[in-house]
Amino acid sequence: MFFEGSEKKIEVIVTPQYQSLRRLGDGFWAQLVTRANAEILSCIRNPYCDAYLLSESSLFVWDDRFLMLTCGTTTLVDAAIGFIEHLGQDAIAFASYQRKNEYLSHLQPSSFEQDLLRLRRHVSGKAYRIGHLDSHHHYIFCTDRDYRAAADDCTSELLMYHIRGEAADYLRGSRQTAAGVRHLLALESMLPEFQFDDFLFQPLGYSVNAIRGKDYVTLHITPQETSSYVSLETNLDLGNYPVDICAQLLARLNPGSWDVIGFNSTPQNHTFPAHLCLGSCSLASEQGYNIDFSHYQHLSHEVLIPEPM
Amino acid sequence: MFFEGSEKKIEVIVTPQYQSLRRLGDGFWAQLVTRANAEILSCIRNPYCDAYLLSESSLFVWDDRFLMLTCGTTTLVDAAIGFIEHLGQDAIAFASYQRKNEYLSHLQPSSFEQDLLRLRRHVSGKAYRIGHLDSHHHYIFCTDRDYRAAADDCTSELLMYHIRGEAADYLRGSRQTAAGVRHLLALESMLPEFQFDDFLFQPLGYSVNAIRGKDYVTLHITPQETSSYVSLETNLDLGNYPVDICAQLLARLNPGSWDVIGFNSTPQNHTFPAHLCLGSCSLASEQGYNIDFSHYQHLSHEVLIPEPM
Repeated sequence: MFFEGSEKKIEVIVTPQYQSLRRLGDGFWAQLVTRANAEILSCIRNPYCDAYLLSESSLFVWDDRFLMLTCGTTTLVDAAIGFIEHLGQDAIAFASYQRKNEYLSHLQPSSFEQDLLRLRRHVSGKAYRIGHLDSHHHYIFCTDRDYRAAADDCTSELLMYHIRGEAADYLRGSRQTAAGVRHLLALESMLPEFQFDDFLFQPLGYSVNAIRGKDYVTLHITPQETSSYVSLETNLDLGNYPVDICAQLLARLNPGSWDVIGFNSTPQNHTFPAHLCLGSCSLASEQGYNIDFSHYQHLSHEVLIPEPM
Repeated sequence: MFFEGSEKKIEVIVTPQYQSLRRLGDGFWAQLVTRANAEILSCIRNPYCDAYLLSESSLFVWDDRFLMLTCGTTTLVDAAIGFIEHLGQDAIAFASYQRKNEYLSHLQPSSFEQDLLRLRRHVSGKAYRIGHLDSHHHYIFCTDRDYRAAADDCTSELLMYHIRGEAADYLRGSRQTAAGVRHLLALESMLPEFQFDDFLFQPLGYSVNAIRGKDYVTLHITPQETSSYVSLETNLDLGNYPVDICAQLLARLNPGSWDVIGFNSTPQNHTFPAHLCLGSCSLASEQGYNIDFSHYQHLSHEVLIPEPM
């Protein structure tokens, strides 16, 4: 029943000279997704963005950039390299490649170090690990060519581990529906103007993409009892959004621990459940991204249940 | 500079009918250690125990039992299977095999699950994982044949991660000596009646075995900045020992987090530094071992330093 929910992520911004990425067409993106060992399940579009729901997470394509997230044992680095080879290095203004700590890293087809070695044969850049190896940590590689991020170019990630309580029980149950999950997490009331595309996996798991103009929100749920993981990612400016999305999700999903990663987005934690922030890091990239990483632990003692093997 | 300090551990108790394990001789134990991909560096003896210091941790042999700990990328399961094959299953009253979470599990030659599959072809038993996969956790396999542990058969382990401060700086420095480390950690004053055997590794690392009658204490230090790990293991009844060994080591080494594992030994934590006990577990084995696992986190916020890669 184990499934690695933790996502790998690539984001690429092309140079202004480059034609629209959306004009590469569905076939191109389907092939790129295949290189990562995933497939496209469905797509929603608006005049700014094509949002693909994948068998393992999501792909968003705008005219000037794309973002792909893949979980499980996918090989996202292959897609990243395939894309760089297809467009040529000169078309790429900025690229980042990220991985989080996995539950079972030894089951992954490659380590971040190995991915890094391959990426650096195609494009130069700086890479860091933020966080201790025996705790939650985040790997990030960013290209180092001249580029300056727009001030409103922000991304927020909320990664939740060990969800508990009624919502978690529902997500592990056999009677759930996609509409039921949307209702449980109040997704439609939190994101009233968004267009939704979601999917319920068998036997367990839920993915949703939501878009509004250039804005996206994507949420992926791996509810498995001993290795649960729920991730939210968005380019909304959460600090100026009418609803406190992170606080609402934390309250409903009640995770034992959670991480917040922000790119030009400073996490507000005063509405979080009682916690100890075990560690945090702020890293300013030369390309104008302030990268924040914080690892939170629910301020409670947990009676651990031995897991028979 | 990375070194995996985290130990694998096997303990075997032979049936009363079996001849003394010590009479198997140094050659036998040297061969067994070789199967684990380690080697014997030195040995101290008393009328009850032969204590071998290994290139990767330690081996203690008594007449009725032995205990081997190996760190790094050693293959302790090979030694375990070699031993069972040599003596035959019937000579084994009780055996346990343990692993902790590793810093870089994907560099290990095998996972605990793989070790378990192999072990169970030779001997039946129960296995558990205690603790979450994304945090500190402990794997244990115990044979399930009829056996009853003596009431005074106790073991305590203190595993310290991310040591900081003056002692940590000394242990990472180039001017340390074995005598200096013994003094720094007050080993001789804490264990006045013990016979010592210690070794300073190049470029970094320190191991010590100490024995007194049937009692042993072993301490291993991997001081490397970003993946430090210090382990203490002993069969002393720490709750009734004149010195609070755990509190003294925690105060000197100032780890960011630490685990306590006890077999018929209840950890006393009121003398520990200010902490949050993130999780704990108590498991009673049918063989009369009460196994306690507790994962502690220093009650402070840590500013994480990005680690360039």
